Amino acid sequence: MTDVLGDPAPDGLLEAFWAYETALMGDDLAALDRLFAEGPDTLRGDAAGLLVGHEQISRFRGGRGGAPARSVLEVHVRSFSHAHALVIAITELERGGRGQQTQVWRRGADGWRVMAAHVAVPAPAFDSRVWRVVGDPLVRPTGSGPLDGETVAVKDLFAVAGQPVGAGNPAWLEQAPVEPTPAWAVRMLTGGGAAVRGITRTDEFAYSLAGTNAHHGTPPNPRAPGRISGGSSSGSASAVSLGHASIGLGTDTGGSIRVPAAYQGLYGLRTTHGAVPTAGVMPLAPSFDTVGWLTRDAGLLARVGDVLLPDVAPRPVREVVVVPELLALAEPDVAAAVEAFADRESAPRESWNLGELESWREAFRVHQAAQAWASHGAWLRTRLDVLGPDVRGRFEAAAAISPDEASVAAARVTAARQTIRELVGDRVIVLPSASSVAPLLGADPGQVRDATLRLTCLAGLGGLPAVSIPTATAEGLPCGVSLVAAPGRDRDLLAFAVAHAERLRP
Amino acid sequence: MTDVLGDPAPDGLLEAFWAYETALMGDDLAALDRLFAEGPDTLRGDAAGLLVGHEQISRFRGGRGGAPARSVLEVHVRSFSHAHALVIAITELERGGRGQQTQVWRRGADGWRVMAAHVAVPAPAFDSRVWRVVGDPLVRPTGSGPLDGETVAVKDLFAVAGQPVGAGNPAWLEQAPVEPTPAWAVRMLTGGGAAVRGITRTDEFAYSLAGTNAHHGTPPNPRAPGRISGGSSSGSASAVSLGHASIGLGTDTGGSIRVPAAYQGLYGLRTTHGAVPTAGVMPLAPSFDTVGWLTRDAGLLARVGDVLLPDVAPRPVREVVVVPELLALAEPDVAAAVEAFADRESAPRESWNLGELESWREAFRVHQAAQAWASHGAWLRTRLDVLGPDVRGRFEAAAAISPDEASVAAARVTAARQTIRELVGDRVIVLPSASSVAPLLGADPGQVRDATLRLTCLAGLGGLPAVSIPTATAEGLPCGVSLVAAPGRDRDLLAFAVAHAERLRP
Repeated sequence: MTDVLGDPAPDGLLEAFWAYETALMGDDLAALDRLFAEGPDTLRGDAAGLLVGHEQISRFRGGRGGAPARSVLEVHVRSFSHAHALVIAITELERGGRGQQTQVWRRGADGWRVMAAHVAVPAPAFDSRVWRVVGDPLVRPTGSGPLDGETVAVKDLFAVAGQPVGAGNPAWLEQAPVEPTPAWAVRMLTGGGAAVRGITRTDEFAYSLAGTNAHHGTPPNPRAPGRISGGSSSGSASAVSLGHASIGLGTDTGGSIRVPAAYQGLYGLRTTHGAVPTAGVMPLAPSFDTVGWLTRDAGLLARVGDVLLPDVAPRPVREVVVVPELLALAEPDVAAAVEAFADRESAPRESWNLGELESWREAFRVHQAAQAWASHGAWLRTRLDVLGPDVRGRFEAAAAISPDEASVAAARVTAARQTIRELVGDRVIVLPSASSVAPLLGADPGQVRDATLRLTCLAGLGGLPAVSIPTATAEGLPCGVSLVAAPGRDRDLLAFAVAHAERLRP
Repeated sequence: MTDVLGDPAPDGLLEAFWAYETALMGDDLAALDRLFAEGPDTLRGDAAGLLVGHEQISRFRGGRGGAPARSVLEVHVRSFSHAHALVIAITELERGGRGQQTQVWRRGADGWRVMAAHVAVPAPAFDSRVWRVVGDPLVRPTGSGPLDGETVAVKDLFAVAGQPVGAGNPAWLEQAPVEPTPAWAVRMLTGGGAAVRGITRTDEFAYSLAGTNAHHGTPPNPRAPGRISGGSSSGSASAVSLGHASIGLGTDTGGSIRVPAAYQGLYGLRTTHGAVPTAGVMPLAPSFDTVGWLTRDAGLLARVGDVLLPDVAPRPVREVVVVPELLALAEPDVAAAVEAFADRESAPRESWNLGELESWREAFRVHQAAQAWASHGAWLRTRLDVLGPDVRGRFEAAAAISPDEASVAAARVTAARQTIRELVGDRVIVLPSASSVAPLLGADPGQVRDATLRLTCLAGLGGLPAVSIPTATAEGLPCGVSLVAAPGRDRDLLAFAVAHAERLRP
């Protein structure tokens, strides 16, 4: 039984309203399309964002598989003219909770049509694309220090006492033991005053840069709605973007901190290989695996470093260099943003011969894959079907690598490491954190992955630290500037990021 | 920088829009009141519900202490006439995430005014009024059985392995040890196939029937917005109402299952005293404490009983009796709903002499209080200021009870137990689960507490099981019918509730 309140409804309006409701509950796409006004001006908004134009709205409806079952409790009508009216409906969802639907209707020659709608449904217990477990807090601080009052979103590769490690895969989670003790990094963060807010989703076994987990969905990118989050530290990044936690703890093997930092406009640090112990962290490719973290604020990025990084003597950043050949690997909008950053820092150009880059990237890929299979092949061998297609394809390719291919790649990695360390020297190199802005949801991530890996593999191969500083393209989309330095200079990069943020402050 | 899109805005509209935004960010209540249309027709909705009329909206604004800081990213204008326009703003919150504000503006003699607004902000990580910790799941099933696929919201009095018990009080939580093993009831539920969805808020030390926790706020009551949730199993009840979990595990000492079940339109069972082990459950008053649970569905209520209750031979309910003197203790709307239930069940009236009822309630109060202080006085003695005023008052009164008063009350409880068991005999007694519908948020819960306790203390004193079946007042607000039976007849009551639900099915 529905209460209809407010102004007397103009002729035909309530009939149209109920026809819409019936069509919605029946997922009658043709009727829904007909009842929304044609043309580019029609609006429909919900928690995922605003859709503009009949075509976008129709496409959204076609893809969602129906609205949640509901009943209409109250209808409030406000009539503006013979041809315009507002209808607000209070709904009760069969799954629980109440929602609100605000519609502006317009009468044309063909009857009443919705010209704008704003739909709100009750939030789920939590966003399971972002979190696996979340609490107030999940784990209390064990000490006091520079991180008092901060909250950490922990990527689901790190041991959290009392919880299993899920690694982004439900089948793995189901059989994983409850961890008796926290990972080293988690223990240090809680000792430094931070609380663990929760455990966040990751790409399966962290073997992706996209964040598009086949089982749990893609965490939202609130700075670039409709685009992917970036991964594999995707849940930690989105949790920080959304303000659910202040620190996103993650890992970076081939870019898994830098890429989501860039896509979501966050600060991120990939640490020097070996600088932060990976004890209690599920490995992917131990030669490249590093601990890293993301924040919305440069100062906090540095304070986390105070807790996690070795206490080495600072060597302030003096020489910042930009390599045009690296800029050229990015899309023009991102390259322009990074170039603008370099110009503000008066970074001189330095030409590099990148003739070996493609072979470096391939050596990185093969060496990573061989180690990924060494880490997980024993369990995955008989269970590849538990993986989403993208990660499965990567593990299948990994399984096919011969010992000879693996050892050739390992040797190339060693050589590349030396070359890259020599190229970087005592300077700081400016390059894009990812080759593009965040790709649209649903786009094929394959090409972007290769292009981005060409940039991110340099720090991976070199075992070098990289800080990603958020900036934006001319269009206003987030992208990231990576600063790469010699091994052990993590704190120097953090100090640079803090100083840079200070200079930006109005 | 804000993009203004869509139709050319009519004269003065954007100025009014920006004046509103400035007033909102400055919490300038006078300006906000001025910019919303006067009168009873103005509408404002958000996730908490729809406010109707300028007065309600103004009162809401006066009480909330300002809106979250935000910037406006996009403004979409649709103009209907010289006097009506729609403005949709996409906002970015300083704390993270994006929101949408839909406004319908009307131009009158005094300029543009908002006649309707729908405001959506990004959901927090989770609703911390309902949950302390929540996961997908928090604890995996350990077996398979009648509860496969179900999820449990565990009141924060039960031990959950890997988590401390928080008891609704932050100071207690801070010093509580992490539990190594689950409470008996939690272990049985996960063994029966259920996953633990999370740990829910409770009134402090479960010493309330309101659900209005002073530290964490009142969980929402989605079936009766603007009204309290009922407690002390408040979070578990709201979690089930909201569809976040299918089973709400709680306790009932003086009504803490039955009252939220009634207020939120849920099924609830308070078990026979001693029938379900309380091992691993924080005590309040062990003579009265029982384990109980809430569901949206009678069948599931019974299936939980199959897992938790002793397996005794069924004795189908044959005689259902209603006591007019008990109906008279409830508000007329609730009494009428319970009477209608009794009529549908053709329950005969039976007059009881309730001359002792007030002394029973007082004996219940004193015996409960003496035990509550025995349970928690050692810790609370020097820390009463960590409690909210309501629960603090109750513990202070408890501390003042003399040993003599306590032993007099204990003797009266023993006598009352015998009398009540004799009165109930082999029948099932129908009575209101609470004396009223859920009181409005902000109302003084003291009087309702006494009136409700007069009804709920009967099962408490008798150590009897009680099932609460949801019904509604003539106005459509949820209320509950309690069916009380002899000790050990929990499963008979569950079977009755299932059969009753079947009879209601269309």
